[in-house]
Amino acid sequence: MTNQKALVLTSGGIDSTTCLAWAVRDLGAENVLALSMFYGQKHQRELQAAADVAKWYQVKHLQLDLSNIFQFSDNALLQGSAKAIPHTDYAEQLATGDGPVSTYVPFRNGVFISVAASVAIAHGCNRLYYGAHADDAAGFAYPDCSEAFNHAMAEAIKQGTGGQLKLIAPFVQDNKAGVIAHGLHFGVPYHLTWSCYEGGAEPCGECGTCRDRQEAFRINGVEDPLAYPQKPTNNGDETK
Amino acid sequence: MTNQKALVLTSGGIDSTTCLAWAVRDLGAENVLALSMFYGQKHQRELQAAADVAKWYQVKHLQLDLSNIFQFSDNALLQGSAKAIPHTDYAEQLATGDGPVSTYVPFRNGVFISVAASVAIAHGCNRLYYGAHADDAAGFAYPDCSEAFNHAMAEAIKQGTGGQLKLIAPFVQDNKAGVIAHGLHFGVPYHLTWSCYEGGAEPCGECGTCRDRQEAFRINGVEDPLAYPQKPTNNGDETK
Repeated sequence: MTNQKALVLTSGGIDSTTCLAWAVRDLGAENVLALSMFYGQKHQRELQAAADVAKWYQVKHLQLDLSNIFQFSDNALLQGSAKAIPHTDYAEQLATGDGPVSTYVPFRNGVFISVAASVAIAHGCNRLYYGAHADDAAGFAYPDCSEAFNHAMAEAIKQGTGGQLKLIAPFVQDNKAGVIAHGLHFGVPYHLTWSCYEGGAEPCGECGTCRDRQEAFRINGVEDPLAYPQKPTNNGDETK
Repeated sequence: MTNQKALVLTSGGIDSTTCLAWAVRDLGAENVLALSMFYGQKHQRELQAAADVAKWYQVKHLQLDLSNIFQFSDNALLQGSAKAIPHTDYAEQLATGDGPVSTYVPFRNGVFISVAASVAIAHGCNRLYYGAHADDAAGFAYPDCSEAFNHAMAEAIKQGTGGQLKLIAPFVQDNKAGVIAHGLHFGVPYHLTWSCYEGGAEPCGECGTCRDRQEAFRINGVEDPLAYPQKPTNNGDETK
């Protein structure tokens, strides 16, 4: 097809799974690698989802353990932290005006992208995809998802690899509903994905990422294919 | 003194040791942390040097093992690689026109800086120093030492941390002799440093980094305090 080869950062969630589908569409599964990170998160359900998605697309799946890097952070997502995962959506958390949300792991995306860049070059890739989108950056919830961050990081990778690798964030101007719109068009297997910050057998339906996910499906006029123990009621008028 | 707190990336070499001295001068040892990385390099003599230097300056010294990240790279510096460390200086290696030198570990500085940024924030630092200088970037030997890379990375860190952390590369426009000129002024303990890519009890004096180091001292009119088994002869007229 081409002499392009890509590495895609995947987490098992909506955005990175859609990003993987995008890369496979562009280059073919044989020219795509997926890379997922364990960073000390409390549960590993999302890594299983990432593996399931890679298997679905028949792409090689690499995993790296970066938990030692984040051992110094006290963050609600991480093992060893006493902080509870907030059961409010990002807009409510940001209304406190305290800057990044409590689930912001310091410069996590910067670390993930830099590590992925090194791994990508070692595997002969010339493209690196990741699924950042505008919703995550809104109000500085996750500053390392912003378009400004992405632009600077793309330049750092271009300069720091001597032009060998290009960073691509296809959804950096989309919101989450827009990402899902792309994915529905591509037939993305969203039933295999996992977004919940809690580690139960089913998604909790209450944490910020569960709420945002369900809302983004609703905006597209479809139901989230995951089974939730209880449906949130804040948009009950659209529940089918 | 101030409410500034810094993390300094240190490798035990000339540049990062001088950079540590710079940060200690600016902020005081009590406001400075040093961080060194094991990345799978064939020998760990340089990590011992980094520890010795941190002890000299009485700053807390952290070490992280990032070797799993670079496990896929076939590079002359890394364990498991059959490639020999070149015994020519960078100018000779670059004359081949093949781009980065064989001791370029893909995007290593990008990974180091990103990881250091995360660790720095977890420790309440608002400055991150590293010792990149113009010689290493010359001719794209190490593209992740260039001023363009540094500029983009600084912007990525500013954007990706919501302005919490500033990247500072004080020597990005200096050559190695210029770095040493600063260090001689600060009384840097260069006898504790280690630059050689080989792992012997004494520096080999022949690898690219040994040659460049000795030349940079000569330009400053002083002798490298390390004991070399045999002095190179290419500038024998200045040997005292």
